[in-house]
Amino acid sequence: MRKIKVGIIGFGTIGSGVVTILTSHGDTIEQRLGAKVEIVKIADIDTTTDRGIKIHSNILTSDVPEVIEHPEIDVIVELMGGYEPARSFILESIASGKHVVTANKALLAKHGDEIFSAVENHQVSFGFEAAVGGAIPIIRSIRESFVANEINSIEGIVNGTANYILSKMSDEQCDFDVALKEAQNKGFAEADPSFDIDGIDSAHKISILTRLTYGTPVNFDDITIQGISGITLDDIGCAREFGYRIKLLAISKFNGKSVDIRVHPAMIPQSHPMANVNGVLNAVRICDNLMEENVLIGHGAGSLPTGSAVVADIVEIARDILSGSKSRVPSQSFQKNKVKMIPIMNIQEIDAEYFLRFSVLDIPGVLSRISGVLGSHSIGIYSVIQKGRSDRGSGVPLMMMTHRANEKDIQMALQEIDDLEVVCEKSNFIRVES
Amino acid sequence: MRKIKVGIIGFGTIGSGVVTILTSHGDTIEQRLGAKVEIVKIADIDTTTDRGIKIHSNILTSDVPEVIEHPEIDVIVELMGGYEPARSFILESIASGKHVVTANKALLAKHGDEIFSAVENHQVSFGFEAAVGGAIPIIRSIRESFVANEINSIEGIVNGTANYILSKMSDEQCDFDVALKEAQNKGFAEADPSFDIDGIDSAHKISILTRLTYGTPVNFDDITIQGISGITLDDIGCAREFGYRIKLLAISKFNGKSVDIRVHPAMIPQSHPMANVNGVLNAVRICDNLMEENVLIGHGAGSLPTGSAVVADIVEIARDILSGSKSRVPSQSFQKNKVKMIPIMNIQEIDAEYFLRFSVLDIPGVLSRISGVLGSHSIGIYSVIQKGRSDRGSGVPLMMMTHRANEKDIQMALQEIDDLEVVCEKSNFIRVES
Repeated sequence: MRKIKVGIIGFGTIGSGVVTILTSHGDTIEQRLGAKVEIVKIADIDTTTDRGIKIHSNILTSDVPEVIEHPEIDVIVELMGGYEPARSFILESIASGKHVVTANKALLAKHGDEIFSAVENHQVSFGFEAAVGGAIPIIRSIRESFVANEINSIEGIVNGTANYILSKMSDEQCDFDVALKEAQNKGFAEADPSFDIDGIDSAHKISILTRLTYGTPVNFDDITIQGISGITLDDIGCAREFGYRIKLLAISKFNGKSVDIRVHPAMIPQSHPMANVNGVLNAVRICDNLMEENVLIGHGAGSLPTGSAVVADIVEIARDILSGSKSRVPSQSFQKNKVKMIPIMNIQEIDAEYFLRFSVLDIPGVLSRISGVLGSHSIGIYSVIQKGRSDRGSGVPLMMMTHRANEKDIQMALQEIDDLEVVCEKSNFIRVES
Repeated sequence: MRKIKVGIIGFGTIGSGVVTILTSHGDTIEQRLGAKVEIVKIADIDTTTDRGIKIHSNILTSDVPEVIEHPEIDVIVELMGGYEPARSFILESIASGKHVVTANKALLAKHGDEIFSAVENHQVSFGFEAAVGGAIPIIRSIRESFVANEINSIEGIVNGTANYILSKMSDEQCDFDVALKEAQNKGFAEADPSFDIDGIDSAHKISILTRLTYGTPVNFDDITIQGISGITLDDIGCAREFGYRIKLLAISKFNGKSVDIRVHPAMIPQSHPMANVNGVLNAVRICDNLMEENVLIGHGAGSLPTGSAVVADIVEIARDILSGSKSRVPSQSFQKNKVKMIPIMNIQEIDAEYFLRFSVLDIPGVLSRISGVLGSHSIGIYSVIQKGRSDRGSGVPLMMMTHRANEKDIQMALQEIDDLEVVCEKSNFIRVES
């Protein structure tokens, strides 16, 4: 029986998951693939830690070129993460004609142009299902299932750490810091959680999805990114009263001319298909005019869920090798000459509904003055909640939901409102996605 | 540029969707595929009705062999539905070396062995994504994404008509008949809706999913099937009080020895990822020990959603043709020599939690007698709701949720309870899936 030979770079969390699956689920894979997948080499700086997985002693090496240049290896699996030396290792592998699988979203978000270009020029297969949404088969679905669909939006809960914290805050009324601490204790958040809670990781992922969905490269620095550290229990409580939940959303919408791409906390209605996606679960929703919407939900992180997506990519490449097909599905989803830069919309151009939170003096006439400013900026209000006196400072909370309005108008109105002497603190807003 | 040539049999609802998409989304498809897909022939008994789609007059024919035997056609798309002559047309197409796409779930459920065997023997490509879950990419996900996964359960809301009716009953407290009538008026239910509401259509779909998920043929007659026509507003109201929603579920679980496959109304917790899947939406949930769970939600029927899945299959086959690969992915998901008959569990062997509904005399001691019978069959109760006097007949409703119990014990206990003189009507139960 033909064997597909794999070399792995990076024997950390995901690497261990992949090795576990390839060694313990070999029969399952063989029943589907009709061939064996064999790990020939694993490279890691740390060659001594016992990871609880039985492998031959001659498989593990600290010398990456030994993997990349190994003449028998068909597929290189990069699971070390980060920009360098991962980028160089991947480019070298591609240049030497190896097929490549990676879970490295940061790298694809920042150096996607260079890497996809190399993949296309060398006509190798390139799998990165595990880079977005872990076990959720979103990359394959975009590249192979939604091929006739003119997609107009893709949005997702694509960071499990942030979702865990927000779910915890919503369901157990605990503060952000407490929820973060618990996420860290449970291993769902890293010691430095900034990539997750500041929205950077979600932005990496939506940048990759945008490329595949609309066929455009994305300049990462043009993405509007806002994290969840400013979300308070008051916001969450109000969201509940208005019938919403707060989620960190990664959003990418295409109007035929420009792409509206952003990451921020958003209110979604409790009846929204992603409103029940809680804890470390991820979800991606994709909309077009044919199938209306498709929502995929699953575990977006972790050794085995992510490992299982990596193994699916290895098997897909194995099928390419066994059937002798090359460049069967374009790695960017679009044919390379059809990938074209689509402008990114400035956040100030977008229209949305908004949740506004003010801290105001508890005196007559305040609502009239604030709604007056909003009205002068063409912002309509459809619901108001006025709370009793709060313990914190002199202000009482005043909360509103607006009708659809322009972001620039909102920002200008809030600036003007913050200058009113009846307003005690800087005002806050959360965009609503329905 | 290379053209992939398609012949379509059946120009009804789905056929029209496919033709619309292929003619109006040609550019989108070409951007992904790098080739054109051309409709060469469409066969239908009705060649005169204006379907509102512009096609060349020489494309439409009433002569199916003209399509199947057309020397230029690469892919035959069967969209007429039903067992015969669809079965013969598909087998003839395969025998003449054509690749085939179909949305015909009834045919695959009943004659799957014969058709898959023909596909394997002639090494053609065979797409049937549209047969289950419409636009939901569940078939591709099982065949290509979940390849290392030892799946232990797959369950779904796979009939839009039944889900529309149950959602309507749940959210608007209208009776079954009213909800069905409205579904028919809106075109969501057929004049004879029995396949949908009796669970037959869902059983067709779970039989196909079972084959792909566990690699086993399914004798359709061995599936336990129960429809939704017995569900009352009382059941739905009680479900709500216990924190559940009632859905028509198609379920297939594998314990390593036998498959528990069944279709019936089930209570699922309101926090379940499929509890918010309402109206004509479908959902499929797949569980294993690596990725835990993946839930896919989308439109399971309709001309364009289903059409878009058919077109995705055509494009997949086009890629096979263009890249010269044959039998790249086994049509049954498993290699043909690995497909083996797994016994189907008798429904009486299953364990589940149960919702029980009794109609009893409003006199002291009733609860004790009923719970006594349940206890004698090792059935534990964890919650009871006793309702006030009902208008209908002499009984008052008594409802219970049980702990995990055996189906045979439940059936025997209910038989015994129905013989008690304090019980006014035949008792009812709904299985709980959490």
